[in-house]
Amino acid sequence: MPTIKPAASETGDPLLLTPGPLTTSASVKRAMVHDWGSRDAGFIAINKMVLEKIVELAGAPNTDGKGTHVTVPVQGSGTFAVEAMITTFVPKTGKLLVLINGAYGQRARKIAEIAGRAVAVHETPEDRPADLAKLDAMLAADKAITHVFAVHCETTSGILNPIAEVAALVARHGRRLLVDSMSAFGALEIDARTVPYDALAASSNKCLEGVPGLGFVVCRKTALAECKGNATTLVLDLHDQAEGFAKTGQYRFTPPIHVIVALGKAIEEHAAEGGVAGRGRRYRDNARVLIDGMRAMGFRTLLGEQLQAPIIVTFHMPSDPRFVFQTFYDGLKERGYVIYPGKLTVADSFRMGCIGRLYPKDMKGALAAVREVLDEMRVSNGGPALAAE
Amino acid sequence: MPTIKPAASETGDPLLLTPGPLTTSASVKRAMVHDWGSRDAGFIAINKMVLEKIVELAGAPNTDGKGTHVTVPVQGSGTFAVEAMITTFVPKTGKLLVLINGAYGQRARKIAEIAGRAVAVHETPEDRPADLAKLDAMLAADKAITHVFAVHCETTSGILNPIAEVAALVARHGRRLLVDSMSAFGALEIDARTVPYDALAASSNKCLEGVPGLGFVVCRKTALAECKGNATTLVLDLHDQAEGFAKTGQYRFTPPIHVIVALGKAIEEHAAEGGVAGRGRRYRDNARVLIDGMRAMGFRTLLGEQLQAPIIVTFHMPSDPRFVFQTFYDGLKERGYVIYPGKLTVADSFRMGCIGRLYPKDMKGALAAVREVLDEMRVSNGGPALAAE
Repeated sequence: MPTIKPAASETGDPLLLTPGPLTTSASVKRAMVHDWGSRDAGFIAINKMVLEKIVELAGAPNTDGKGTHVTVPVQGSGTFAVEAMITTFVPKTGKLLVLINGAYGQRARKIAEIAGRAVAVHETPEDRPADLAKLDAMLAADKAITHVFAVHCETTSGILNPIAEVAALVARHGRRLLVDSMSAFGALEIDARTVPYDALAASSNKCLEGVPGLGFVVCRKTALAECKGNATTLVLDLHDQAEGFAKTGQYRFTPPIHVIVALGKAIEEHAAEGGVAGRGRRYRDNARVLIDGMRAMGFRTLLGEQLQAPIIVTFHMPSDPRFVFQTFYDGLKERGYVIYPGKLTVADSFRMGCIGRLYPKDMKGALAAVREVLDEMRVSNGGPALAAE
Repeated sequence: MPTIKPAASETGDPLLLTPGPLTTSASVKRAMVHDWGSRDAGFIAINKMVLEKIVELAGAPNTDGKGTHVTVPVQGSGTFAVEAMITTFVPKTGKLLVLINGAYGQRARKIAEIAGRAVAVHETPEDRPADLAKLDAMLAADKAITHVFAVHCETTSGILNPIAEVAALVARHGRRLLVDSMSAFGALEIDARTVPYDALAASSNKCLEGVPGLGFVVCRKTALAECKGNATTLVLDLHDQAEGFAKTGQYRFTPPIHVIVALGKAIEEHAAEGGVAGRGRRYRDNARVLIDGMRAMGFRTLLGEQLQAPIIVTFHMPSDPRFVFQTFYDGLKERGYVIYPGKLTVADSFRMGCIGRLYPKDMKGALAAVREVLDEMRVSNGGPALAAE
């Protein structure tokens, strides 16, 4: 039985130490307790604010449609935005080089293949970023490659991929970059003025701390303008979606209004915290407390400091046979902390997230809960911390 | 200036007399003021309940996966569900006959064409249902047609299409039926035991009175089983989505959790009102009050009684040049009622919805507001009601 008082969010829910959907503020969720007409001026104004603020967060101010980039929202989820990005930007005659070191790279390859786009792959192990020399050589050798797809932070492992270096290399070869920044955008800087890309996909329910239901793609306008007729679907056609907004300010198809209004509130709170820098600082603090505390209890992280993004941390399962993951999960849940199973193919692992409405005090609470559950399970976890591999 | 006290919903918002998103109950919206993990047991149980209840509403009980039909949800909106339905069920070698008498039939044709499916069309004016003799002849003449697409209630006009007769005819010819029941499902009966179809699409935010963000397709299981590999996208592949649920009970990609939990609450309230029969009764009462009251003020409905669904009513614009639609809209909004512009190509019109958390007293309030705004505009609307065309 837990001796510590179970943790709870402002609305009395367990804290979500996951890669998202996340713990959000009570005010973000309470913003949804209203009804709006999807074609009424009030909602249209909120949505416009949301789309413009996202472009600003990307480093490319876009007030009143002026500017180099535009945010095109996609109803659904982050993967809907990724599929919309790939199938809108890569023409039927194009070829996509996918950088893979986890499940989200794999998923992008699958999307491109189903859509009938030619695909090349550069795959590295889940704990290793793309080999830039190899990428350089592939781009030099295969002139058919028109686009490169890269994941910013691959939540399969929590690895931070070298997106700025990849972008520079792709640009040097005159190719186009598509970025999946799903779990990084809003907390890890990626500035459109210095990191060139054609499109970057993210979603409402990661580092922006909204609720799930909306993906979006920050698009370079001149690149998007070339994409008319590329898409092989109606609903995922970003060019058509953007044209709809340009004409009427409205979605072509019913938007998830409540999700968008919540995102508006979340973006306000993001600004109040100091924007990308402030949000990133809190997540780094969370990650520091978590990693140090877990290591002190003998857990080993998959990744070393250089590769670890302050988003989600993968820990190896302890080798003690008394450690049973489901018991560990249930014990933490009982104490108010929801963690995440591993998704690695290279090692038995579990994951703990640092993002969402969580603070260092919450990470300390989670550590106390881990300690208590380990003791209950009588797991011996090797005393002093082992170094990360 | 309004002399009547502006109407407001339980949460203080204007009442939405639109085809959706709609006014919802306060309790439905308040159900969203929590966080859940998308892979945690609590949410998985709520989602399972939602999917099973929808199959029951379709007339095909499906407890624990037993039964003839299954609900496959689609993140996004109703149109996402329609595109998923068409591209999953119609194979690349198939041919879709689309019955069109409004914008939603047109949209289905566009979806099928973009996806590269062969298409035939039977189009009638917006105030006229499909010609069953003509449909019979087309199916007899064109053996390449594999599927027929029909809209149950076409919200362009508010017309109730003869879906049972169409279904019987399509079945007699041994073809497959896909139904867009977006704005009818949950209020107008369509029973899978007597109206044969392969798939029926609807969404969270129409007659079920949830919030927008989720579409769903009720699928005949044996038909869905034949659809592996048909889809030309990853995210809209209903066969793959259904396999994911069968394996893990979970969504393949992040679901709009809050929208789904709200839908769970909305379905509870739907049952408490007496299910499809009870919900339909209230909407018929609303439509009766609205139509009688508007006719008494000289407005003419587009449709006669036989064709009018109790969902949304299209009114001709008054011919008096002092009637300015934007002034009318703004005057009603100021009094707490949001109406909808027309979408007809055949006549200048506007629309007023009867669905959502609205009662006959609300329709009476709307009529009083219409009266006051007409008087303010000094519109003479022909005294005694003119008969519908």
